[in-house]
Amino acid sequence: MEFRSDNTAGVCPEIMAAILKANEGVAASYGADPISEGLNAKFSALFEKEVVVFPVATGTAANSLSLAALSPQWGVVYCHRDAHIEQDECGAPEFFTGGAKLGLLDGPHAKIDAATLDSRLKGAGAGVQHHAQPAAVSVTQATEKGAVYKPDEVAAIGEVCRKHKIALHMDGARFGNALARLNCSAADITWKAGVDVLSFGATKNGAMAAEAVIFFDPAKAKDFLYRRKRTAHLFSKMRYLSAQLDAYLEGGLWLKNAAHSNAMATRLAEGLGALPGARLDAPVEANEVFIDLPETAIQRMEKAGLRFHRWEPGGTLLRLVTAWSTTPAEVERVISTAKEAVTA
Amino acid sequence: MEFRSDNTAGVCPEIMAAILKANEGVAASYGADPISEGLNAKFSALFEKEVVVFPVATGTAANSLSLAALSPQWGVVYCHRDAHIEQDECGAPEFFTGGAKLGLLDGPHAKIDAATLDSRLKGAGAGVQHHAQPAAVSVTQATEKGAVYKPDEVAAIGEVCRKHKIALHMDGARFGNALARLNCSAADITWKAGVDVLSFGATKNGAMAAEAVIFFDPAKAKDFLYRRKRTAHLFSKMRYLSAQLDAYLEGGLWLKNAAHSNAMATRLAEGLGALPGARLDAPVEANEVFIDLPETAIQRMEKAGLRFHRWEPGGTLLRLVTAWSTTPAEVERVISTAKEAVTA
Amino acid sequence: MEFRSDNTAGVCPEIMAAILKANEGVAASYGADPISEGLNAKFSALFEKEVVVFPVATGTAANSLSLAALSPQWGVVYCHRDAHIEQDECGAPEFFTGGAKLGLLDGPHAKIDAATLDSRLKGAGAGVQHHAQPAAVSVTQATEKGAVYKPDEVAAIGEVCRKHKIALHMDGARFGNALARLNCSAADITWKAGVDVLSFGATKNGAMAAEAVIFFDPAKAKDFLYRRKRTAHLFSKMRYLSAQLDAYLEGGLWLKNAAHSNAMATRLAEGLGALPGARLDAPVEANEVFIDLPETAIQRMEKAGLRFHRWEPGGTLLRLVTAWSTTPAEVERVISTAKEAVTA
Amino acid sequence: MEFRSDNTAGVCPEIMAAILKANEGVAASYGADPISEGLNAKFSALFEKEVVVFPVATGTAANSLSLAALSPQWGVVYCHRDAHIEQDECGAPEFFTGGAKLGLLDGPHAKIDAATLDSRLKGAGAGVQHHAQPAAVSVTQATEKGAVYKPDEVAAIGEVCRKHKIALHMDGARFGNALARLNCSAADITWKAGVDVLSFGATKNGAMAAEAVIFFDPAKAKDFLYRRKRTAHLFSKMRYLSAQLDAYLEGGLWLKNAAHSNAMATRLAEGLGALPGARLDAPVEANEVFIDLPETAIQRMEKAGLRFHRWEPGGTLLRLVTAWSTTPAEVERVISTAKEAVTA
Repeated sequence: MEFRSDNTAGVCPEIMAAILKANEGVAASYGADPISEGLNAKFSALFEKEVVVFPVATGTAANSLSLAALSPQWGVVYCHRDAHIEQDECGAPEFFTGGAKLGLLDGPHAKIDAATLDSRLKGAGAGVQHHAQPAAVSVTQATEKGAVYKPDEVAAIGEVCRKHKIALHMDGARFGNALARLNCSAADITWKAGVDVLSFGATKNGAMAAEAVIFFDPAKAKDFLYRRKRTAHLFSKMRYLSAQLDAYLEGGLWLKNAAHSNAMATRLAEGLGALPGARLDAPVEANEVFIDLPETAIQRMEKAGLRFHRWEPGGTLLRLVTAWSTTPAEVERVISTAKEAVTA
Repeated sequence: MEFRSDNTAGVCPEIMAAILKANEGVAASYGADPISEGLNAKFSALFEKEVVVFPVATGTAANSLSLAALSPQWGVVYCHRDAHIEQDECGAPEFFTGGAKLGLLDGPHAKIDAATLDSRLKGAGAGVQHHAQPAAVSVTQATEKGAVYKPDEVAAIGEVCRKHKIALHMDGARFGNALARLNCSAADITWKAGVDVLSFGATKNGAMAAEAVIFFDPAKAKDFLYRRKRTAHLFSKMRYLSAQLDAYLEGGLWLKNAAHSNAMATRLAEGLGALPGARLDAPVEANEVFIDLPETAIQRMEKAGLRFHRWEPGGTLLRLVTAWSTTPAEVERVISTAKEAVTA
Repeated sequence: MEFRSDNTAGVCPEIMAAILKANEGVAASYGADPISEGLNAKFSALFEKEVVVFPVATGTAANSLSLAALSPQWGVVYCHRDAHIEQDECGAPEFFTGGAKLGLLDGPHAKIDAATLDSRLKGAGAGVQHHAQPAAVSVTQATEKGAVYKPDEVAAIGEVCRKHKIALHMDGARFGNALARLNCSAADITWKAGVDVLSFGATKNGAMAAEAVIFFDPAKAKDFLYRRKRTAHLFSKMRYLSAQLDAYLEGGLWLKNAAHSNAMATRLAEGLGALPGARLDAPVEANEVFIDLPETAIQRMEKAGLRFHRWEPGGTLLRLVTAWSTTPAEVERVISTAKEAVTA
Repeated sequence: MEFRSDNTAGVCPEIMAAILKANEGVAASYGADPISEGLNAKFSALFEKEVVVFPVATGTAANSLSLAALSPQWGVVYCHRDAHIEQDECGAPEFFTGGAKLGLLDGPHAKIDAATLDSRLKGAGAGVQHHAQPAAVSVTQATEKGAVYKPDEVAAIGEVCRKHKIALHMDGARFGNALARLNCSAADITWKAGVDVLSFGATKNGAMAAEAVIFFDPAKAKDFLYRRKRTAHLFSKMRYLSAQLDAYLEGGLWLKNAAHSNAMATRLAEGLGALPGARLDAPVEANEVFIDLPETAIQRMEKAGLRFHRWEPGGTLLRLVTAWSTTPAEVERVISTAKEAVTA
């Protein structure tokens, strides 16, 4: 029973069906097939704005290519200390940008806030040749701690970015989970709040390997074709990437999957959070639960074959992640196993 | 009717079945699943040697990552002027290596030969700080012109590489087509002939998006995990990549597919080559036909909706590529269409 | 009257004389002249060990080239948050290394300590493909705050580096000032304490533009020639660089100059520190004084044409730097000017 | 007696005097000193146009930084196969640009011509994502074979560049020698002929280590400060670099020095060229003589302690380079030594 990550889940049936359908006959390569060619319109409709979309296969590619489009070599990209781009990409942003720096910010639940950012930017030495130059900010939606930025929070950050003339990127590896939680449109939380480029994730939420880099200002996208090819992220049989994204949007599948995994996480948090000795470490706003549990409960869960992460080796803070395929029965099993231990 | 490239073909049934099978249930991510973990053994059996295998999704990734493992920043990688790494990767090798140079060699049918290479290396300034340093050679098997290196040809190149203490890479985007043509083992044409690293292609020959980087010397592979991750080519749901490669090897599917497309190309070359005014530009040893045809025949073919490339804009030298899915009927249709035009 | 930086000072007479002498007649280029060829022996004598020396012209070049030799692209170089490599080189270390990260550590007076470093390294994810990999530590001697590491402090850091199998670099832009302060040999504070590569600065201490990268393990230096050339830091008329370094060592000139500027800083700190309202912000162990003074004193000093830095725009914490050419009269003038203001 | 290269010569008296003068007292660092601040005006006067000037210390830095300013990572910079940027910079242009390619062109005497360039650019795949993109052309003035481009030759190349919307760089490591030969202004051979950026060399022609990167369009220079710093080519004691350039222009010193070395080369070519068995390999238009001599003459010259290069190891094609400091007596000595051998 898997709660280590949402990327241990398989491909959801609707997306697999789309892949099979895309497999009929021949198709022009490198994105000249009809499914690929339809993506701009489909995403533009979702975002209520003309956007330019580039499918890639990994979240790290989406993030790194986005940042390379927004920052010169000598740029600084500001992000939270816990951000995936800082912690879990083995320096990919530095590689793709040609050596830009990540400027790390603190904040609860892996969120950054506008005031902290503004203060940092004021002392950053913009225009002085000795210093790497402020270039962009990257926010993660939902964050690495399972929290979700509200539209006004992003808008405040967007305002600081405009004030300092730098760009705003959103790492939306779990964008679906965030939007399923928020009572707003995809536009509200992105370009209307100042986001320039979005890494729109699908892999963690039911796709096989598909992410979309979305430019809200087509002018900023003009070199992206070369960047993608040059980093070896252009697929020859693009139709299979595009079919995943197409199906992901179709009929709101992405929100349906996300709402389900969010609900599973919420139930998990409620069930585990009610146990004696339990302490939720972060608000559960998406599909991740960070919770401190008594060691006896943890060992019982491990013994029962439940799989999840101790956030620090040997520690009692756990991360449990739900997915589109997580079942209520699995969630109840986790809760009851932990409960047995602490009430024994 | 598609003869523009083998990457316009879909995924062959056996591989699609393997993808569907891999989709059952959850699986550990990033290559810790059982299918991924079985690949080293499976490829080692094929190559009759302990090899280390890294699945990636694009041929450009396989090539560029391989070269980055073999060349320092200040290295020169020698290859044919028509090689894919020089012509069609938008500078990916330069990017991945941190700015190594490609040293271009000439030779018929996009093949390089040992003597030319040796001569170039002698004048390359090895050990002199002013010059980029010889680091590796890359040969393409089959070549961009559809020719195939024989084992003794590769071995002679391998010998030159050892003499000059540089590495040998093989771009095997169409390795299956080459091997289906040759009367030798996979070992004979690779490590036994001095190849250090192979880009083993599957995408063009029936997979969806799967290539394997194969190190014949595991010691050279020690940093590869970091290179792959850092360039955003590590897949979270790795099982789908690995399942493609696993099925591709299973029961010799890779050779079966390749033998078929080779046969289709051979028939196409015979049929078209026999027409008055036709001239084969290169030996048809794999699944590509380079042929000069009368303009009238070309226009008739175009009008009939047959799709292929004029090698130069407006020229009469054509490239036609067959695939695992090309049917004899399609081939005959091409031949008869051209025949009608030249015999009208 | 200049106290903004030691790089506002000119070239000291001994070094200028050496430049003039080096200018007699022709000389082989790119380091094949006799002065350049003598440097290895001269520095080996100083460090009581066979070292390999590469002259370059800027401190940023010395640091960045050193770090590139010690860290792979996917490496992390740990340093203090205030280090020159982090704050004042516009991302040069990231550029030269191909995108390695700087891992920032805190500590008083811009010093890092062994325990903090060890703790950070334990949680750094060595060997895990998702994370940039610990590669090196860089300590600055003297630090950006004018403090000096003692041999046992460096040795403790060196021990942590060996334990975690990473390298140790010392940014010795003000190495002379540090050594003039310490009661130890150049060997004690470098290779005997675990330093692998030293940026040995001369520019700030009386040279025109000359720094030496010193490898204590010649084996680590084998690619350095290519790195230096490739980054455009190989000088054709190398004799002029080498002559500066040669004269700098000759007769202990480097220590004489450093001892002088240290003494000037010490006197400045005593004089200013005794004023009412003054507060020394860091121990004055080299040639920099960080001191908080009453605003009235600062304005009087500014009005008198004395030049120094307010450490933060508008703040009352000052940095005053002395040089080989600073005179006792200049120092007394600063003190008396400040005194007038606070006693008025 | 040195004819191996013009960089074996020392610093000419006027420039050394300027360095000594610049050494009086303190000066603001990093280019804020009066000599540095005067350079833009001085070069603008020379070029009869507002230019922006950046002093650096090596020719490779000037070239690589210029090209990085003109080409994206995925760009192609076209140059002659023998160009210094291709042959003698250990891949520095690739490093500084982040992996751009050099596209090599042929042509007699290391010159490229407009028609060849135009033809290459037509087939370069501009706008196609698979191919590295045409970005710039670099011409060397005078060339590596001692030939000089005439204004109409550069203008024709400039026209092709504008037609294909790419930039034109001139590597003027021996710009003085070229101009001393031509009957035109500095403007005529640069911006009036379409040159965007010039590497204006001084080191080979009497300076110690000083080159100027000159932007004829200030708008293209806006990021250059960061590029220079980030590659460690910003000097703290900039006054010494600037003083060299200032003195180099003063009173036409640069043309005087160049005219002298050109005259020495011309006399050498006449004298040696008249010998039986001699054959000039290229027109002697600057300060380099490429000449094929009988082996007996060469050995006599070698035995006499004259130093020059055999262009290929063991070959009889020689390169002899004159400098500002070459004397008529030295030249006559070379001629008479060779003469003795062939008339013996």
